[in-house]
Amino acid sequence: SRSINLAVIPGDGIGQEVVAEGLKVLSAVLPQDVKLETKEYDFGARRYHATGETLTDADAEALKQHDAILLGAIGDPSVPSGVLERGFLLKLRFLFDHHVNLRPSKLLPGVATPLAGEPSIDFVVVREGTEGPYTGNGGTIRKGTPHEVATEVSVNTAFGVERVVRDAFARAQARPRKKLALIHKNNVLAFAGHLWTNIFNQVAAEFPEVTTEYMHVDAATIYLVTQPERFDVIVTDNLFGDIITDLAAAVSGGIGVAASGNINPSGEFPSMFEPVHGSAPDIAGQGKADPTATVLSVALLLRHLGYEAEAARIDEAVAVDLAERTGKPARSTAEIGDALAVRVAG
Amino acid sequence: SRSINLAVIPGDGIGQEVVAEGLKVLSAVLPQDVKLETKEYDFGARRYHATGETLTDADAEALKQHDAILLGAIGDPSVPSGVLERGFLLKLRFLFDHHVNLRPSKLLPGVATPLAGEPSIDFVVVREGTEGPYTGNGGTIRKGTPHEVATEVSVNTAFGVERVVRDAFARAQARPRKKLALIHKNNVLAFAGHLWTNIFNQVAAEFPEVTTEYMHVDAATIYLVTQPERFDVIVTDNLFGDIITDLAAAVSGGIGVAASGNINPSGEFPSMFEPVHGSAPDIAGQGKADPTATVLSVALLLRHLGYEAEAARIDEAVAVDLAERTGKPARSTAEIGDALAVRVAG
Ligand SMILES: CC(C)[C@H](C(=O)O)[C@@H](O)C(=O)O
Ligand SMILES: CC(C)[C@H](C(=O)O)[C@@H](O)C(=O)O
Repeated sequence: SRSINLAVIPGDGIGQEVVAEGLKVLSAVLPQDVKLETKEYDFGARRYHATGETLTDADAEALKQHDAILLGAIGDPSVPSGVLERGFLLKLRFLFDHHVNLRPSKLLPGVATPLAGEPSIDFVVVREGTEGPYTGNGGTIRKGTPHEVATEVSVNTAFGVERVVRDAFARAQARPRKKLALIHKNNVLAFAGHLWTNIFNQVAAEFPEVTTEYMHVDAATIYLVTQPERFDVIVTDNLFGDIITDLAAAVSGGIGVAASGNINPSGEFPSMFEPVHGSAPDIAGQGKADPTATVLSVALLLRHLGYEAEAARIDEAVAVDLAERTGKPARSTAEIGDALAVRVAG
Repeated sequence: SRSINLAVIPGDGIGQEVVAEGLKVLSAVLPQDVKLETKEYDFGARRYHATGETLTDADAEALKQHDAILLGAIGDPSVPSGVLERGFLLKLRFLFDHHVNLRPSKLLPGVATPLAGEPSIDFVVVREGTEGPYTGNGGTIRKGTPHEVATEVSVNTAFGVERVVRDAFARAQARPRKKLALIHKNNVLAFAGHLWTNIFNQVAAEFPEVTTEYMHVDAATIYLVTQPERFDVIVTDNLFGDIITDLAAAVSGGIGVAASGNINPSGEFPSMFEPVHGSAPDIAGQGKADPTATVLSVALLLRHLGYEAEAARIDEAVAVDLAERTGKPARSTAEIGDALAVRVAG
């Protein structure tokens, strides 16, 4: 008999509320014969204030025992900026080698977009997750003086770039339009840019059916608002991916519906799924948060674990739920979760 | 008697066509007593193919003799990506210490935007122009092998950050809304982020009337499409500025109307003014390019040289011209230039 042993990290703010609904929908969608085990972890601001820790070696060992991780959101104004981001979120991405940061953008019928007209948006960004300017390399001299110098080093390896480029080509190959865009800034960041472009072109030769293009990151932001239908699969570095996926989320319905997966395709370590949005302390505890992004992240989680039919049922339920929202009064976090749970079970 | 000794660099592609119109409008707007001298330089793809050079020491010395530089666009598919960008454009920005890269975004009446509704957009980005990931620091080992490592080093100095932050505060102070946003990614790029945030907060104490906010670059892309009216003045690093100003141009009428100044506020070296758009080889030589961005760059140039009234006349002429376009047949590059020249003279 099958089983899923899930680590659950509600985290801070609305993380608690949206994860509860994600689990509700997960339980509802799973067939009877799949045993779902969950263990909750208290990482985030609470743990940090109680113990000063963000993620210990023992914590990491415990998390490794799970098949996957569902994360709500991490971050609270009471904790200095960056402490939880780097001490927990990025630490996990690096420790568990989450090199494929997967972020689909699909504008579903009935969903509002800030763009005029009725753009057709359906693409997925494959963001590198373990290199680039995110490695924490760099430093500061003469801190706090008028002669301070601070550096940030973007580290890019053939190993790291090739595996994520290969993953993106495989995804493009599997989609009807079979298009892949590399986004970088190779006219300025020539060392990293050459590595990315060169490997991209090499791997392209193995995927003759995939149509490729290269685009500078600045130009890409223009296309994302003027011709988003142009994109099918995008592969890009860690920082450019961070920036363009927030823009992509904004044009395709907002961060209320943007899901993401921090994926280790080899399965050596558990992958982690989380909504793109943050902990939104301003609306926390009020039942106002939209759990849709978390529910869609649960679909990515199921797909990753091989439950394709169940993932598709969630995607469909969300599409119907969103399409039926227009003109109706706003529902609470739990009401949306309940409605989705009913739909996926039915 | 007054005089302007201008270096003119038409460059590649549509650069030639739009610069001709920029000069037409400049001549028309200047009072009789101002003597305009121009000298044209052939930098860009032509020079590169003829001599293999992009910008020699002698070229730089010659350019230094001018009061300002008007640039069309640099770049051609026949030249490998990055060669002209780094060998000419960025080289000049660094040699002439153009640390204030000024990029206003104003959505004028009658101008199309990809955003729904009728957003009100009127802000200016002060992009640092001589540091950050643009310094060319970094390198590659084991190039072309499966063990290649390529690094890019973002270099940030207290000196470099403080002068551009101070410039941005002064600009915010001089505007009616007096708002300044710092855009960075200080939760991840903690070394550079701390330097920027710390200096920003220090300088803020000297400008008590300016309302400040901090925003991560990824979140900023969301606000630029959902709440662009939120911004008044933005100050940011070289790479983030590159990215968000293309997005800002896209939402406020497109790169056809986006002007920029590469400014050395001390006047030690001439400042350079250029449209944000590129050389657009696909439409070059057809009289299709919109010269408006270049004409608005001429206004920035005049303002920089102290010709405020003339700069304002150009801004007004462009506003009227844009407002009257709706429903009319498209005009050629020269027709638009002619119309603007008549308006600013009148
Ligand atoms: C919170 C932050 C560290 C994170 C990132 O920069 O990757 C977030 O913006 C994201 O996109 O997941
Ligand atoms: C052409 C390129 C080097 C340049 C930059 O990256 O600064 C351009 O994108 C710009 O914004 O002026």
